[in-house]
Amino acid sequence: MPNVRHITLPAGFAAAGVPCGVKTTGQEDLALIAADRPVPAAVVTTSNQVFGAPVAWCRKVLPAGFGRLRGIVINSGCSNVCTGRRGERDAEAMAALTADRLGAAKDEVLVASTGIIGQPLPMAKVRRGIAAAAAALGRRNDPAVVRAIMTTDTREKSAVVRTRIGGAAVTVAGIAKGAGMIAPSLATMISVITTDAAISPRPLHRAFRAAVGESFNALTIDSDQSTSDTAVVMASGLAGRRLARGSAGERKFAAALAEVCGALAMALARDGEGATRLVVVGVRGAASRRDAKIAAKAVADSPLVKTAVHGADPNWGRIVMAVGKSAAKVVAERLSVRIGRETVFARGRPRKCDLAAVEKHLRGETVTLDVNLGLGEGAFTAYTCDLSREYVTINADYHT
Amino acid sequence: MPNVRHITLPAGFAAAGVPCGVKTTGQEDLALIAADRPVPAAVVTTSNQVFGAPVAWCRKVLPAGFGRLRGIVINSGCSNVCTGRRGERDAEAMAALTADRLGAAKDEVLVASTGIIGQPLPMAKVRRGIAAAAAALGRRNDPAVVRAIMTTDTREKSAVVRTRIGGAAVTVAGIAKGAGMIAPSLATMISVITTDAAISPRPLHRAFRAAVGESFNALTIDSDQSTSDTAVVMASGLAGRRLARGSAGERKFAAALAEVCGALAMALARDGEGATRLVVVGVRGAASRRDAKIAAKAVADSPLVKTAVHGADPNWGRIVMAVGKSAAKVVAERLSVRIGRETVFARGRPRKCDLAAVEKHLRGETVTLDVNLGLGEGAFTAYTCDLSREYVTINADYHT
Repeated sequence: MPNVRHITLPAGFAAAGVPCGVKTTGQEDLALIAADRPVPAAVVTTSNQVFGAPVAWCRKVLPAGFGRLRGIVINSGCSNVCTGRRGERDAEAMAALTADRLGAAKDEVLVASTGIIGQPLPMAKVRRGIAAAAAALGRRNDPAVVRAIMTTDTREKSAVVRTRIGGAAVTVAGIAKGAGMIAPSLATMISVITTDAAISPRPLHRAFRAAVGESFNALTIDSDQSTSDTAVVMASGLAGRRLARGSAGERKFAAALAEVCGALAMALARDGEGATRLVVVGVRGAASRRDAKIAAKAVADSPLVKTAVHGADPNWGRIVMAVGKSAAKVVAERLSVRIGRETVFARGRPRKCDLAAVEKHLRGETVTLDVNLGLGEGAFTAYTCDLSREYVTINADYHT
Repeated sequence: MPNVRHITLPAGFAAAGVPCGVKTTGQEDLALIAADRPVPAAVVTTSNQVFGAPVAWCRKVLPAGFGRLRGIVINSGCSNVCTGRRGERDAEAMAALTADRLGAAKDEVLVASTGIIGQPLPMAKVRRGIAAAAAALGRRNDPAVVRAIMTTDTREKSAVVRTRIGGAAVTVAGIAKGAGMIAPSLATMISVITTDAAISPRPLHRAFRAAVGESFNALTIDSDQSTSDTAVVMASGLAGRRLARGSAGERKFAAALAEVCGALAMALARDGEGATRLVVVGVRGAASRRDAKIAAKAVADSPLVKTAVHGADPNWGRIVMAVGKSAAKVVAERLSVRIGRETVFARGRPRKCDLAAVEKHLRGETVTLDVNLGLGEGAFTAYTCDLSREYVTINADYHT
């Protein structure tokens, strides 16, 4: 979808993506997404204990995870991780240079970087890139913006949801990159979401955390976790009146935000390294929501489950094994498993099913694995992809 | 090593391995390892919440994990997992049939099964196999015994340690299988260890649990955990006088037992599915031993680390990422990483090193990754293998 608009569809935002030479390919590698004035914003960053200087900057600017921002500057090709004091200065300089161009304060600008780790940013190039991007800010650059944040992603990822809240048309739009690698490096997830909804920072943060919990935090490509993951949302407030706390409008906005995050998370999983299909793992009947999440992630992280899906093998034994090894409470006699529409295992026993239908489902673009633990009301859905030889090739054959 | 003796080297044991037709290949698939009389024994089984009927039988016979046994009967080709009441009856019948032949009580015989899950055991074949194995019991069958417990293992795994304790020659011998798959199923670890040491059940159990904790429980091929894992040790007591509690002799025996378990665990890792090299992950300087174990397993389980090793890529960033994402306490500025003899990352910063030497080490048969968290005295060593395209092929291309 290289020609559609997305991130600047909500009123009050402009964006640009430019090549500045951090990537050696000549492709766009610097993106700037800016609000016309300081707007409510919220950010969620990686929980990895080793994190990059850009993540540290985001936390410094928004220690509670929310506040007001003018924009975010993102570069690809170099993640500015494990770069010490110099890295911290470079991240701050990126914010300051961007703020200068926008007529903002530097603590109104977030920074995200993705790419090689352990190497310093080429700041002369980045400086020129920021100047070029600021000069190019507009509402017709969305394809270049999404290309500028990509690394080895094979597809551009964006999502737009339009809804009506209290009589006003509200748009929520998002872009994301991830599940690709840059040497020597990590799969790094970055997402920027814009909206014209009128909402204060704190409820925006609350809605965003909930949306991220069900989407990006429900996503696993290979159980490894980046040192740079950053997701940010900015709300220009130009669409209608401020959403009252606890109102139906606020809930409607939260649902739209969750929908955008969910669509982006599924797009990331589908484009996971070497992936040939999206795998949606639904767990219900868990003793708690926490247990459901643990069990769903155990299935979604299991190399044996993921290779079975890759081979379109109706191998329910591996699904049973994965939930059984997890820390979630499991009672074998209560356990049921469905692949697509076929129940293959019911209350602890194999069930005769249409194996041809199961295999056909496993060969499709989207595979659903549903587990019912039969113990309670806890439910969670996780997103992943299959595990292919191509994943190994991508991650083994590159040389640092 | 098909012609060496191992499991019957300690005095007081006999064994046999026979083909009985559970495997369709005609290879040996039933093994019997018997003590001449009831002897002290200890068992450790999987912590997977879904476990097979043979595991349930072992727990019923030795609820505290130790006691006295006459032997263990093992079949490959069918794991008797998820087989309901019928599976429970079949496991008990295997014990009873074996006990009959040995002139023992059925609760003096353990059972282990490995192979396809969700299918009932072909008991007529198993019955004939038990009769044939009991008739063939002897001290010259060790190669057939180890073949009979193999599934897709590519190598036979055995280890022998001889030591002198209190003037007597003591032998500890073990066999193991695992890291191979049988459709549709799981990587299943089974190990049997015999010794002529004179030691009571309870201290034997204590020494065995400690040895297993440092060996089999420090082993990860792909982070997935079998529903059938079982390790058992039997001590005939024919070598010298009973080891006194807390004596130097008991510690010497524990060390020999740990050495056998460690050698078997490394052999399992080296023969992991698709593996081309053994990877030894050492973590020290952790805030606690528990933290060291968590961090070591995070590195050993990381697909990104394992593919980097496979590609001989000196990718320390992935090692840093893996410890950072773990639940172990990590402070980036204290963290150091060594690959082979080269320190690649020191106290939070990349370190100039001989990259050619690192790559050469990564291409060797045994790769060592050492992480120093710089926080305390906790240490742990985990064993794994690299992740190859062949792993995906083995686990994706089989069809149930």
